[in-house]
Amino acid sequence: MLKQAAKKLKMKIPDDFHTIDPEAKPFQIEPAKISKKSGLYSYRSFQKAIELAKEKRVDGIVTLPIHKEAWAKAGIAYKGHTDMLRDIFKQDAIMMLGHTKMFVALYTEHIPLKDVIPSIKTKRLVSFFLDLYNALHPKKVAVLGVNPHAGDNGVLGDDERKIEKAIQKSNAHIGKNIFEGPLVPDIAFTKEMRKRYTYYIAMYHDQGLAPLKALYFDKSINVSLNLPIIRTSVDHGTAFDIAYKNKAKTKSYKEAVKAIKKFK
Amino acid sequence: MLKQAAKKLKMKIPDDFHTIDPEAKPFQIEPAKISKKSGLYSYRSFQKAIELAKEKRVDGIVTLPIHKEAWAKAGIAYKGHTDMLRDIFKQDAIMMLGHTKMFVALYTEHIPLKDVIPSIKTKRLVSFFLDLYNALHPKKVAVLGVNPHAGDNGVLGDDERKIEKAIQKSNAHIGKNIFEGPLVPDIAFTKEMRKRYTYYIAMYHDQGLAPLKALYFDKSINVSLNLPIIRTSVDHGTAFDIAYKNKAKTKSYKEAVKAIKKFK
Repeated sequence: MLKQAAKKLKMKIPDDFHTIDPEAKPFQIEPAKISKKSGLYSYRSFQKAIELAKEKRVDGIVTLPIHKEAWAKAGIAYKGHTDMLRDIFKQDAIMMLGHTKMFVALYTEHIPLKDVIPSIKTKRLVSFFLDLYNALHPKKVAVLGVNPHAGDNGVLGDDERKIEKAIQKSNAHIGKNIFEGPLVPDIAFTKEMRKRYTYYIAMYHDQGLAPLKALYFDKSINVSLNLPIIRTSVDHGTAFDIAYKNKAKTKSYKEAVKAIKKFK
Repeated sequence: MLKQAAKKLKMKIPDDFHTIDPEAKPFQIEPAKISKKSGLYSYRSFQKAIELAKEKRVDGIVTLPIHKEAWAKAGIAYKGHTDMLRDIFKQDAIMMLGHTKMFVALYTEHIPLKDVIPSIKTKRLVSFFLDLYNALHPKKVAVLGVNPHAGDNGVLGDDERKIEKAIQKSNAHIGKNIFEGPLVPDIAFTKEMRKRYTYYIAMYHDQGLAPLKALYFDKSINVSLNLPIIRTSVDHGTAFDIAYKNKAKTKSYKEAVKAIKKFK
């Protein structure tokens, strides 16, 4: 399949590129076409990669985007890579995105905005903070508030008290002041603040990803933490509109490969 | 008061600087001290500026941050400049922040995150969109969704349908397709998208301001639209920690002065 793709793109496969076949039938590539066979091939490839990572035959897994519809057509119930990893390892994978000096871990991910506030619970926060700490052993982590101005002393919401409590409990548990905050969200990612922090915890998807992508879209990567294996991924979609046109940028992919070394 | 401040900072007041006294008693400046008299002086200064703007004796008003506590000590009920402008003109001022080529108008401002979703109402959105259109006459405005992935076809919330309806109604009313969206929030501010759009409408405070400040903190300005007068403001706080230390950056202030010309 790789040879076929390389031929279509008029590219050469590097000599030090080792490939292992997944247990799926090869097929004729039709650019940007969503099909059952392509879905199955991508699913089985990922399954094979997990197997190799579990057996420590590879250092980690780098994934390119899957098309959810193709997986669905192939009868795969998982919504995506992270979903599958969670199920296989029965562990709460942490989704963290970033670029070189700024990484944002998401406390809540793909949930409607209205469900964010009900998810802010001290106990759950502590467990998330400690999982992140154990996965990264960072020196310092910036924890964002959830309301504008981090609640402005309760005037704009008092959920920050729960976050504050979780920070205190987590730091006490570790015995060091690792977690700092809750920070005022809209000024947490200024240049000045990014000098101070490398790791951030955002309370919800767009709070962390809108500033990250404003700064580093096309360069940033996605990493799954808190699992027995390490997996990184590009931070973009399938881009079917430019499939096999030699137009796709590879910056994020290269960064994802490099990140295996950083996070393993 | 200006002479006194200039002396403290060892600066010269430019010759073409015209000053008009507010109806308040001058006092001895004590850097970073919150007091009733300083609160009253700042309130009366703003009051005077509004008077001058109403009488068209000035092109617009540029404000520096006030300290809410100082106003409160002076018995002023307003929480800030915008609040006061809304009350005086009995009009819904639109708060827009930005820098040169990226401006974000806030559909909701200083409210707890939990109140954002209940505020998404088609009729109110249409009225906001049309007010913004009348204030700016922009060629194109990007309207953000409110849920991650703009709801992902309803999987992550269906509030985007109301936004979509409001966009259609507003465009029909104007007779041109001015408003576009709802856009996926976390990729709305990438470099590529910023080439396409100058004006954005964010559904809530941090959705628009976190990316804006990640990109342009210290340079961006705040402008009050939809009022009979134009008022711009710096996009930072009082910075009492560096008061009278000749350390404050003036970039945002200069931009706020320039913006009067752009938006009047």
